[in-house]
Amino acid sequence: VGSRGETQQQRPLSPLGPYSSSSRIITLLTDFGTADYFVAATKAAVLTINPHALIVDVSHEVPPGDVESAAFTLLAVYKTFPQGTIHVAVVDPGVGSSRSPLLIRTAEQFFLGPDNGIFSYVCDRESEQEFFRLTKSTFFRQPVSNTFHGRDIFAPVAASLSLGVKPEEVGPILEEITRLDPLAPKLRKDGRLQARIIHIDRFGNCITNLTPQDLPLDEKSVKAGLSIKGKKIKSFRRFFSDEDSSGKKLFAIWGSAGFLEIAAQNSSAARMLKARRGDKVIVSMDGS
Amino acid sequence: VGSRGETQQQRPLSPLGPYSSSSRIITLLTDFGTADYFVAATKAAVLTINPHALIVDVSHEVPPGDVESAAFTLLAVYKTFPQGTIHVAVVDPGVGSSRSPLLIRTAEQFFLGPDNGIFSYVCDRESEQEFFRLTKSTFFRQPVSNTFHGRDIFAPVAASLSLGVKPEEVGPILEEITRLDPLAPKLRKDGRLQARIIHIDRFGNCITNLTPQDLPLDEKSVKAGLSIKGKKIKSFRRFFSDEDSSGKKLFAIWGSAGFLEIAAQNSSAARMLKARRGDKVIVSMDGS
Amino acid sequence: VGSRGETQQQRPLSPLGPYSSSSRIITLLTDFGTADYFVAATKAAVLTINPHALIVDVSHEVPPGDVESAAFTLLAVYKTFPQGTIHVAVVDPGVGSSRSPLLIRTAEQFFLGPDNGIFSYVCDRESEQEFFRLTKSTFFRQPVSNTFHGRDIFAPVAASLSLGVKPEEVGPILEEITRLDPLAPKLRKDGRLQARIIHIDRFGNCITNLTPQDLPLDEKSVKAGLSIKGKKIKSFRRFFSDEDSSGKKLFAIWGSAGFLEIAAQNSSAARMLKARRGDKVIVSMDGS
Repeated sequence: VGSRGETQQQRPLSPLGPYSSSSRIITLLTDFGTADYFVAATKAAVLTINPHALIVDVSHEVPPGDVESAAFTLLAVYKTFPQGTIHVAVVDPGVGSSRSPLLIRTAEQFFLGPDNGIFSYVCDRESEQEFFRLTKSTFFRQPVSNTFHGRDIFAPVAASLSLGVKPEEVGPILEEITRLDPLAPKLRKDGRLQARIIHIDRFGNCITNLTPQDLPLDEKSVKAGLSIKGKKIKSFRRFFSDEDSSGKKLFAIWGSAGFLEIAAQNSSAARMLKARRGDKVIVSMDGS
Repeated sequence: VGSRGETQQQRPLSPLGPYSSSSRIITLLTDFGTADYFVAATKAAVLTINPHALIVDVSHEVPPGDVESAAFTLLAVYKTFPQGTIHVAVVDPGVGSSRSPLLIRTAEQFFLGPDNGIFSYVCDRESEQEFFRLTKSTFFRQPVSNTFHGRDIFAPVAASLSLGVKPEEVGPILEEITRLDPLAPKLRKDGRLQARIIHIDRFGNCITNLTPQDLPLDEKSVKAGLSIKGKKIKSFRRFFSDEDSSGKKLFAIWGSAGFLEIAAQNSSAARMLKARRGDKVIVSMDGS
Repeated sequence: VGSRGETQQQRPLSPLGPYSSSSRIITLLTDFGTADYFVAATKAAVLTINPHALIVDVSHEVPPGDVESAAFTLLAVYKTFPQGTIHVAVVDPGVGSSRSPLLIRTAEQFFLGPDNGIFSYVCDRESEQEFFRLTKSTFFRQPVSNTFHGRDIFAPVAASLSLGVKPEEVGPILEEITRLDPLAPKLRKDGRLQARIIHIDRFGNCITNLTPQDLPLDEKSVKAGLSIKGKKIKSFRRFFSDEDSSGKKLFAIWGSAGFLEIAAQNSSAARMLKARRGDKVIVSMDGS
């Protein structure tokens, strides 16, 4: 983990071990937006059951139905939270259909949401994990609507977990969960790495799926051969305001989520490149 | 209540009865936006008086001055909060003028805001309610500005209520409050129900003012005669991802706030219909 | 302070004096936006160290890199918070470069952020203040990234302060900090005051840098000579909905942050005037 730019947590150690103590922290990641009543209803459903829960918004601005975007955001932030944190992630275009409501125990944390791939990147990174299908309706808000499982299933179950309910109590074990395409870049036959843009942030930085494990990029290797949309990125920086002699506005930088980012000096790299999530990023190690 | 699609709360019962215990939960619903200092100043005014208050944002994205929109959002969410919750709703184009600052006790909860109709839909639904005009300036932040009663009047009074102050202490009883036009649809002379769109949510779903009490809609009756902007809605679904044989993209669905919604498969019904709040929705029960 | 329209706080007095007790309240003011994981990561870094911290968002919608805008927002709200509050303000285009990470103790509160002028307006208003350069890396999240000091430096130090760590423990005293141009209007040779728009809020109100100390504006003096972009503002109101006989839509009003604002009846003054932050506002006291 450290090698991906992520850091070890300063965690207050629990004398009871990782899974035996309940946590007050419940995070919310949704595509609900903040203009409607959806987020407040979800929080109200938590607080009705555990008035002492500490609810932290991750984001509610996930593009509607964009499971992949939510999966990345969760990946970028979950390790910063202390052990025992309960993450509720609801981007759920299949709400009310046959997709399972899911609870995952991994990384000494809990994850609640629909089984549609939203926890895919987190689970790909972690070695040990347990999956549960939420079936015990006594833990749900009654009656359960067909359109709002955030309020009626995931929030109440999160609140119950925060009060000490065990995953084993909320439903049976699942063998496997829905997975998105793996996040890792692919090695092409010509020896080049084919990466892609997995997120564009508020500042227009283009986050790629390249990690230090994929290639130990530095100034030299980046100059050698990083390209996006046919454009070579010839500059590498250690921080955003680092002026370099090349005068190039676009540069590569190791970002705070542990991935290589394409950025621009006081500007939006995404706008300059007309880049979108999913765009290819090609790396050649031999300067070709 | 249950008949409108809303649910019974799982409420922790207070041994002291509904009105004798104070609540930590104070909700905020405003048109302040989140770019300025307004929301933070309101929260600071609460926390200065009660540092243990638990503040929950409902929304701050109400369109500026849109009292009707705020009234709907409050209606859609208040019952999800536990008893004793104190709702502060400030969409207040008349701030500083002669409109009264108001406190309402109903539904085992409290409501604070300007007397301009913002609590109209909640009060129309509840049978018992008491109104108070906020006059005791010792509960206000001093000096009271002419332009920011959220910070100077409603937040401090909410904080005092959360510490156990009684409604009777903050001002005299009011006989009646300002009311918006009732939310219920109208029966036309030709026997059809004339409903309207009362809200359009982030996903483009068009929420109507039709409840199960107005008509027990099902697949058959919807197909018979639900129309909006001259367009017949011929499909009815139980959940969003429910594929139906008709292949119709637009459909009706009972939504999570207890109203009938016009929605679209993975798309914005509002955009497809060019619909706006206030647009008529016509229902004929005889297929005409 | 009272003379600027700001009010005295109703503060719970600490028996231990202003600086000896720790506060739970940590505010966040950033340009991170709310779509990415940045805000949640910052909060997680706080809660990992102090799970009992009470985090209050001021705003995350500061325009990217706009230090002056953040400085105004902080100025408008800090006095509403109780003593001991810890304000974290991170608009930090120079992150990772040589600019110092800063802690300020003033107004019986704490301020944490980059030394780039963001605390300039607060410090200009306060008479006593102490500056510290954050150097003790034991208080940082490890390893410290080059691009996200909100998560790795300011949040952990804020959390430590909230647990009782003293400013003297986190680094050496600084003699001076970076200052923006002063906020006060300038007296021109022709006797007129040259002010400017320092902020435009959500409602389109144009906040100027004119305070009651600069000139005791009233209806008469405003009519005499307040102009912006060549347009005279001839109306003065006490509150927004105050109808006046002049029929003028644009008017001046003392705003809730203690500054004179140019506003419009149920409309955006900024749009009507095509005004931007920085636009000149001229005041003549003699009607010229």
